[in-house]
Amino acid sequence: MPDLTHLTINSNRLRESLEAMAAIGRTPGGGVQRLALSDEDRQARDLFVAWLRELNLEVSIDGMGNIFGRRPGRRPELPPVMTGSHLDTQPLGGRFDGVLGVMGGLEVMRTLNDNQVETDRPVVLVNWTNEEGCRFPPAMFASGVWAGRMDIRDAYSRTDLEGRKFGDELEAIGYKGTSRAAAWPFKAYLELHIEQGPVLEQENKIIGVPKGILGAHWFDVHVEGTANQVGPTPMEGRNDALCAAAEMIIKVNELPAKMGGGMVTTVGEIHNFPNSRNIIPGGVHFTIDMRAWDDDLAGRAWQDLVKDFESITGRRGCRFRTESAMRIEHTPFDANLTDLIRRTAEELGFPQHNMVSGAGHDAIYMAKLGPTAMIFVPSINGRSHVEVENSKWEDCAAGTEVLFKAVIDQAAGE
Amino acid sequence: MPDLTHLTINSNRLRESLEAMAAIGRTPGGGVQRLALSDEDRQARDLFVAWLRELNLEVSIDGMGNIFGRRPGRRPELPPVMTGSHLDTQPLGGRFDGVLGVMGGLEVMRTLNDNQVETDRPVVLVNWTNEEGCRFPPAMFASGVWAGRMDIRDAYSRTDLEGRKFGDELEAIGYKGTSRAAAWPFKAYLELHIEQGPVLEQENKIIGVPKGILGAHWFDVHVEGTANQVGPTPMEGRNDALCAAAEMIIKVNELPAKMGGGMVTTVGEIHNFPNSRNIIPGGVHFTIDMRAWDDDLAGRAWQDLVKDFESITGRRGCRFRTESAMRIEHTPFDANLTDLIRRTAEELGFPQHNMVSGAGHDAIYMAKLGPTAMIFVPSINGRSHVEVENSKWEDCAAGTEVLFKAVIDQAAGE
Repeated sequence: MPDLTHLTINSNRLRESLEAMAAIGRTPGGGVQRLALSDEDRQARDLFVAWLRELNLEVSIDGMGNIFGRRPGRRPELPPVMTGSHLDTQPLGGRFDGVLGVMGGLEVMRTLNDNQVETDRPVVLVNWTNEEGCRFPPAMFASGVWAGRMDIRDAYSRTDLEGRKFGDELEAIGYKGTSRAAAWPFKAYLELHIEQGPVLEQENKIIGVPKGILGAHWFDVHVEGTANQVGPTPMEGRNDALCAAAEMIIKVNELPAKMGGGMVTTVGEIHNFPNSRNIIPGGVHFTIDMRAWDDDLAGRAWQDLVKDFESITGRRGCRFRTESAMRIEHTPFDANLTDLIRRTAEELGFPQHNMVSGAGHDAIYMAKLGPTAMIFVPSINGRSHVEVENSKWEDCAAGTEVLFKAVIDQAAGE
Repeated sequence: MPDLTHLTINSNRLRESLEAMAAIGRTPGGGVQRLALSDEDRQARDLFVAWLRELNLEVSIDGMGNIFGRRPGRRPELPPVMTGSHLDTQPLGGRFDGVLGVMGGLEVMRTLNDNQVETDRPVVLVNWTNEEGCRFPPAMFASGVWAGRMDIRDAYSRTDLEGRKFGDELEAIGYKGTSRAAAWPFKAYLELHIEQGPVLEQENKIIGVPKGILGAHWFDVHVEGTANQVGPTPMEGRNDALCAAAEMIIKVNELPAKMGGGMVTTVGEIHNFPNSRNIIPGGVHFTIDMRAWDDDLAGRAWQDLVKDFESITGRRGCRFRTESAMRIEHTPFDANLTDLIRRTAEELGFPQHNMVSGAGHDAIYMAKLGPTAMIFVPSINGRSHVEVENSKWEDCAAGTEVLFKAVIDQAAGE
């Protein structure tokens, strides 16, 4: 392969494609709502496929609706370099989460084409279906099926809140493809993404290099007290489930400071019963999201928390039970790839930062199959999954530049 | 009037009428669901009116659907003695709340008729519409209109959760009466009711004599933080609205111990936004119900609480605002009537207890117009507004016996 160090991506074109995608499902608040398999998702896919075809890429769509654009290279029989992310968004989500990785990968392909670069290995750009999982839980299940970690019939039968099935909806938007949703060997999977947190901005860095993705543990906690009318029931002897839950929530919040290790814990959801202004709460259901790099530390933290819960509910005459709703162990990325990304950012003059990813990505499933790494760019104010989600255009371009160089590196040789 | 001290009510008949009413809207859990102006409410009213007519009482129904049964007495021109309560219940409510006061009053009328007692003053039994207010908020608004404290057009326009209007629903069940919903002078209003709390049971007493009803203050608290994705957002710098709310809820719970004065405070309702497992809560709305005899103490307690709220939200980088949703000052009952009830209970050999009512009752509005008092009987385990709400039949009879004697006392002379 000739010396390609002088090549750069077209940052204006990258911005234009991001803006074109942001127009599909645009919300009044300046965000994007493009739920998986919605009409907006179909429109975004149609545009994406048209762009892939313009580049003369080999387009294939698998049974999960994952869209692949393949650029064969000089030795099409070799495992390809893969890159991509997802075009679906959260409800009232932002313009960058997922989309940047797909449009960044597209810009890489366009730059390769512009310069008539013939890589040794094939390069494959992918749009994973339903990464967000907010319409059809759980998240990332199309990459999960592709990676052989989830059954496709199970995926097809998942329903949204209106009871519509994933399989039917996929067919309805015309993206139930004919190729099998099954992994092939790959040389590397590189995913460009916004950070979705405040760290890069605080550290004044442009490129984030996560060493991997935190383990995520979801728990459901059910607290049972005694519902009763508020006025005639003295404070002494009440079994107020919400007061117990409030103390438990504070304990969840205090856990990371107690345990260390960069853990984050959140109570995001709470349901109170009967939830009436003048009835003492008789039952509360709340969730816990616990993320940690060290899976053992998370286990010890949970045990510690359960002891606190026992003491709180015991003192308040309440009971509780817990359920584990999800458990994903931490995902380490490939050290050679993260080194490559660091080195590349350095060569390009972009200040870079070693970190972890607190959020889940399709890279979790890819890392189970082959060398995988991610490239992060800063999120303004660390906001994500909200309409005001934002990143600087030059940071998006910087991340895409790093992706381009890393793809070229990996696509070279055998 | 002849000596009536030997007369007693018929406790079996009282039980039968309570059981007949409990069959209308009976729930699988052994409670009653008879929401105001529902078909069940209509059935209960039809039965009640039939019973009134059997007793040859003068039945009138006013524009709010309040049902009155009048027993004229020897001097029908004198202000009557009034007694009664309400036949509507909470959703999944109990068999005694409200119903006991109406069936107890009915038993008083039946006993007067059985013994051909001619009282000096008229005696009026009333079933107030929509005391609970859970279908059409606020509570007690039919007695409120009758007492001139609320406008009837306003009442008619109140809607339930399905948007159906109170006025239309009242007409639909055939109980929009023709007489004007407006107070007349009365000698005394006596309301028999279950305690709805655990005090009488704990004190091992049969008759409770409330000196009045606690003031009730309802507040809405809105906490604003910053929603963000849980994984990538470090604990430091979060503005978690639910954590702030949890600390605030604990402060509400601790307030009565701090302030004294028999105050009770409760957070019964909470709404969390966006209430998603993996998003840091960006907003919380919760309610506070504060009840106290001393209105000034309640005011000072609120000021104290707001200071705590300021410190909590300030520390967590959140903001809050509060709204006052309702404010009812405490209602003192008539000292002569409470003395009479105490004396009567003593004469009948029923251990009695001086207390306050923490719950609101139609007696609040009646006390604004004339001498008013209540008679409480024990609630088993202090439970109310739930299907397991229960009272002993003999305690119901004891309360009715006291009511009967008190009505006779008040109905005598000028």
